[in-house]
Amino acid sequence: MKTITTVKEMRALSDQLRKDKKIALVPTMGYLHEGHLALVRKARELADVTVVSIFVNPTQFGPKEDLAKYPRDFDRDAQLLEKENTDIIFYPDAKEMYPDRYSTYIEVRGLQDHLCGKTRVGHFTGVATVVAKLFNIVKPHFAVFGQKDYQQLKVIERMARDLNMDVEVVPYPTVREKDGLAMSSRNTYLSADEHRTSLLISASMAKAQELFKKGERHSPALRRTVEEVLRSRDGIDIEYVSICDSATLEEVREIKDNAVLAIACRVGKTRLIDNTIFTEA
Amino acid sequence: MKTITTVKEMRALSDQLRKDKKIALVPTMGYLHEGHLALVRKARELADVTVVSIFVNPTQFGPKEDLAKYPRDFDRDAQLLEKENTDIIFYPDAKEMYPDRYSTYIEVRGLQDHLCGKTRVGHFTGVATVVAKLFNIVKPHFAVFGQKDYQQLKVIERMARDLNMDVEVVPYPTVREKDGLAMSSRNTYLSADEHRTSLLISASMAKAQELFKKGERHSPALRRTVEEVLRSRDGIDIEYVSICDSATLEEVREIKDNAVLAIACRVGKTRLIDNTIFTEA
Repeated sequence: MKTITTVKEMRALSDQLRKDKKIALVPTMGYLHEGHLALVRKARELADVTVVSIFVNPTQFGPKEDLAKYPRDFDRDAQLLEKENTDIIFYPDAKEMYPDRYSTYIEVRGLQDHLCGKTRVGHFTGVATVVAKLFNIVKPHFAVFGQKDYQQLKVIERMARDLNMDVEVVPYPTVREKDGLAMSSRNTYLSADEHRTSLLISASMAKAQELFKKGERHSPALRRTVEEVLRSRDGIDIEYVSICDSATLEEVREIKDNAVLAIACRVGKTRLIDNTIFTEA
Repeated sequence: MKTITTVKEMRALSDQLRKDKKIALVPTMGYLHEGHLALVRKARELADVTVVSIFVNPTQFGPKEDLAKYPRDFDRDAQLLEKENTDIIFYPDAKEMYPDRYSTYIEVRGLQDHLCGKTRVGHFTGVATVVAKLFNIVKPHFAVFGQKDYQQLKVIERMARDLNMDVEVVPYPTVREKDGLAMSSRNTYLSADEHRTSLLISASMAKAQELFKKGERHSPALRRTVEEVLRSRDGIDIEYVSICDSATLEEVREIKDNAVLAIACRVGKTRLIDNTIFTEA
């Protein structure tokens, strides 16, 4: 396993590799958990060479968000990736990615404004921008993204299509703790009690799926049920409960196939998101 | 010479060519003149394969601009390009470039807001976006742009650097009519009288260069002289006369090496731009 920290070296290596190998990229912000490692295993299935980028991207954090305290542990990450037979870690610093007079940003209009975009203004611009840069530097044939960050996945799929990027964006199902909590680097912020409270999120989604299977197709009814479950304990603040179209992320009133239930909550100071897709059997 | 109209076919051909050839791209909106053909000749010097794109890009026109009446003549363009031994014309239609639900736009903040950006709001977002798409589709090693569209050149250079695009942006000096008027597809809008009036633009730049060579370094004085020359005939409206830093495009008060004099005027209904760089001997 090789760790590369400069754009120049990464690009030169990718150019060399692309001559006779397929490359898959897993973009991460580090502090890896089992969810990331599942993406790495998927990448290894898809391609000859697996590149994992570790970069806590400043442009996707708002001024009041947790950039400074976002958890970081490169040595631990490197050990985990070594065990998964990762080929290359791309590990640039902020100066390498955003040099002096950096000015260019990518907006995926519409899609970026729903769900998390309402409160995290500029977040998806930062995400789209850094992912475009990583695509141009690593030049992967495949890039694997978790479905847990559903809006991020949709923004990146749209960007790749719209800008004619020659990369296949591959979604991967959300990986969960045994108790149902969606894996996230931010789970490390949760106290034991907060962790228990957070389980209401997956519990509310399970309840919604149960009602959907019994035939409920009316969004306001499902949303009310989800909100009731979430409010059944103190210490959880709902940011949104949205039932939306899987392509446009616009709210739907009547549920058709592939609508998405997306939830964002704050448990203590920790912001958590999760989602589930309603699929006709 | 081959004409390609689909993204899919262009990309497949470029992938094939890149295995052992260098590609140079000249992006144009067609209605070619000697200025474009000089770019094509430069492209042929740089690379093995020359691709000229012809696409009147709707996203760079404002709602009150001349998209519908922008001059078009594909057959004439193709004949001119054939004579220059162009290898490939990439000639997509708007639907091919901007499919349903198109949402992604690239902003080069700061740079896009000066000079023409003040009145042509959104113009450089449209330019940056379509050029990024063309780069991703044609995958050139080199892309040649005229210095006549100075702000466009700077926006694209910055975008390519910022987004780590693997393409060398090559500037090419402005090509002029014998009488000094910078070549532009929009010159075709000018009546004979308007054409004569338009010559004030290059005349005013020559006067500014003369004063600069005599030692004048104070922008307001130079700008005043330029404006006096431009106002010496009726029928010309000044949009801006700017003396700016060549990298940031911000106004400068004292001229240092490589400051740029940039002018935008309206002659009749036709908007014309031009520029000249102050270079210490």
